[in-house]
Amino acid sequence: MNSDLITLQHIIQAHGRIKPYIRHTPLEYNGELSRLYDSDIYLKLEDLQVTGSFKARGAFNKLLTLEKNQCELGVIAPSAGNHGIGLAYAAHKLNVPAFVYLPFDVDESKVKALESYGAVITYFDSIEEARVSALRAAEETGYTFLSAYNNRSMIEAGGTIGLEILEDLTDVDTVITCLGGGGLTAGLCIALKSINPNIKVWGVQTKNSPTFAVWHQNGEVCPVDLQPSIAEGLSGPIEPETLTFPIIHEHIDRILTVTDEDIIEAMKSMLKHQYIVEPSGAAGIAALRQLGVEIKGRKIAVVVTGRNISWSRFLNLVK
Amino acid sequence: MNSDLITLQHIIQAHGRIKPYIRHTPLEYNGELSRLYDSDIYLKLEDLQVTGSFKARGAFNKLLTLEKNQCELGVIAPSAGNHGIGLAYAAHKLNVPAFVYLPFDVDESKVKALESYGAVITYFDSIEEARVSALRAAEETGYTFLSAYNNRSMIEAGGTIGLEILEDLTDVDTVITCLGGGGLTAGLCIALKSINPNIKVWGVQTKNSPTFAVWHQNGEVCPVDLQPSIAEGLSGPIEPETLTFPIIHEHIDRILTVTDEDIIEAMKSMLKHQYIVEPSGAAGIAALRQLGVEIKGRKIAVVVTGRNISWSRFLNLVK
Repeated sequence: MNSDLITLQHIIQAHGRIKPYIRHTPLEYNGELSRLYDSDIYLKLEDLQVTGSFKARGAFNKLLTLEKNQCELGVIAPSAGNHGIGLAYAAHKLNVPAFVYLPFDVDESKVKALESYGAVITYFDSIEEARVSALRAAEETGYTFLSAYNNRSMIEAGGTIGLEILEDLTDVDTVITCLGGGGLTAGLCIALKSINPNIKVWGVQTKNSPTFAVWHQNGEVCPVDLQPSIAEGLSGPIEPETLTFPIIHEHIDRILTVTDEDIIEAMKSMLKHQYIVEPSGAAGIAALRQLGVEIKGRKIAVVVTGRNISWSRFLNLVK
Repeated sequence: MNSDLITLQHIIQAHGRIKPYIRHTPLEYNGELSRLYDSDIYLKLEDLQVTGSFKARGAFNKLLTLEKNQCELGVIAPSAGNHGIGLAYAAHKLNVPAFVYLPFDVDESKVKALESYGAVITYFDSIEEARVSALRAAEETGYTFLSAYNNRSMIEAGGTIGLEILEDLTDVDTVITCLGGGGLTAGLCIALKSINPNIKVWGVQTKNSPTFAVWHQNGEVCPVDLQPSIAEGLSGPIEPETLTFPIIHEHIDRILTVTDEDIIEAMKSMLKHQYIVEPSGAAGIAALRQLGVEIKGRKIAVVVTGRNISWSRFLNLVK
């Protein structure tokens, strides 16, 4: 698998397919960050997307290409939250049964959202156990399995965000995105660099879950020591055979890592504009501080990916 | 002055004029409120508008029709905050000097936003004193004065929200909006009822500042006892000669009043979806509770007008 198998044309088709169901979210100039770093910083506010994260794009992209009998059977996914919510919402809108396998420590607001869309929820000890169980259930039942990232539907959907950034900011020179399973990042790489190979794509991981950072430096998949982080959407093991790694390894210009403290500062900076952002969603902004003078004079789009966090947890983090 | 002087055609023209500068904000289905009231409730999220409130629409509408010499001189406005921010932003984008007269107790987040757009700020003891002083300054200097509501530009701009609601929800039967100076409400009345006279428009004031409620019942302008409220955008005296009253009196179907406690509950309900809304912006949602079974079976759009509130004040209200 390499990026040749997912092309700009596929991403444009995916965008056309999902457009009636998603929002072209705002690309908002942030004067405060721009002044601070002497650059032009725009935020792609996918936290304002339907379902509160960018993940609905991939869910619609997948469900809209299923056969009728697959739709009748249903879809199943493991999720740290946002992927499940996106899938449950799309499934609800398109009348498809949805089964979501969650780690037991999932954010409470995410469970409420899932319930509101009528998804059938099952809990597991960890996201990895949820994944293995969902895969097994898919085999046994015929439900369509949808990984949160290791799937061409999710990669194409990530690319649609790149198309929208370029529609709104044709001369962007750098796109910064949080990097979890890599669907978003891989899609952005393909979309942006197919249109303009000079655009830099920088991915941001947490210091506690730096899988892609380590693999990319190593040149291949290898064991990585993983610790928990407040950014649950960017935490946990990545499937070694993921389609996203070869694409990211080939195209990405840089992978940065941030601490939980960096992320909390970024969440506070968004709060000044009355935006509640979840930890994973703020990772891109969190990376700006360590970049500092390096980004002077650049025209940057930072993807803010989600807002799904319970009020009590949010308060506890930003207090 | 009656509604004949501002027509649907004027509102459509205004919408065309301001479209490149504003957002077509989401009309978001709210499942929780819909289930609670056994109706279909959609929220027109103007809190996600540029400048954090619907007011930018009116500012752009005005500034885009000024003569070159008027633009060079500058614009001046009294404001409880959002109108000033909308004006300062539009003026910044269009390279027009902006002077904003504020009451001293304005929300801190609103001052920061005004400063970030380079507006020249002057403080007064009250919004009424700010208004009188701004009018005097406009006469002395030649600056163009822009009332937050008593101006056809602002009324037309309010109407553009009605156009967008109907674009997204053609069969809406009831539109609920907060009602301060009445620019938004008057515009909504003209736009919605010109397109479909059967659509009901309900305005929501605070119990502490029920000017339109009293005038409407009385059939004409009369003294109204005013008390402070947490919804500063809906508080304070209304100019007795305002263009908005005859339009609202002719067309509005109902005026409701809500308490500060109702508003806080509405703010909490938005917070469950990770939206920070300011008190004035939540008044429309606050009215649902007292409507209760009356709205059963209706298809309702509630305009949520703004999100500009400082974090400390927000926390203090929702704690």
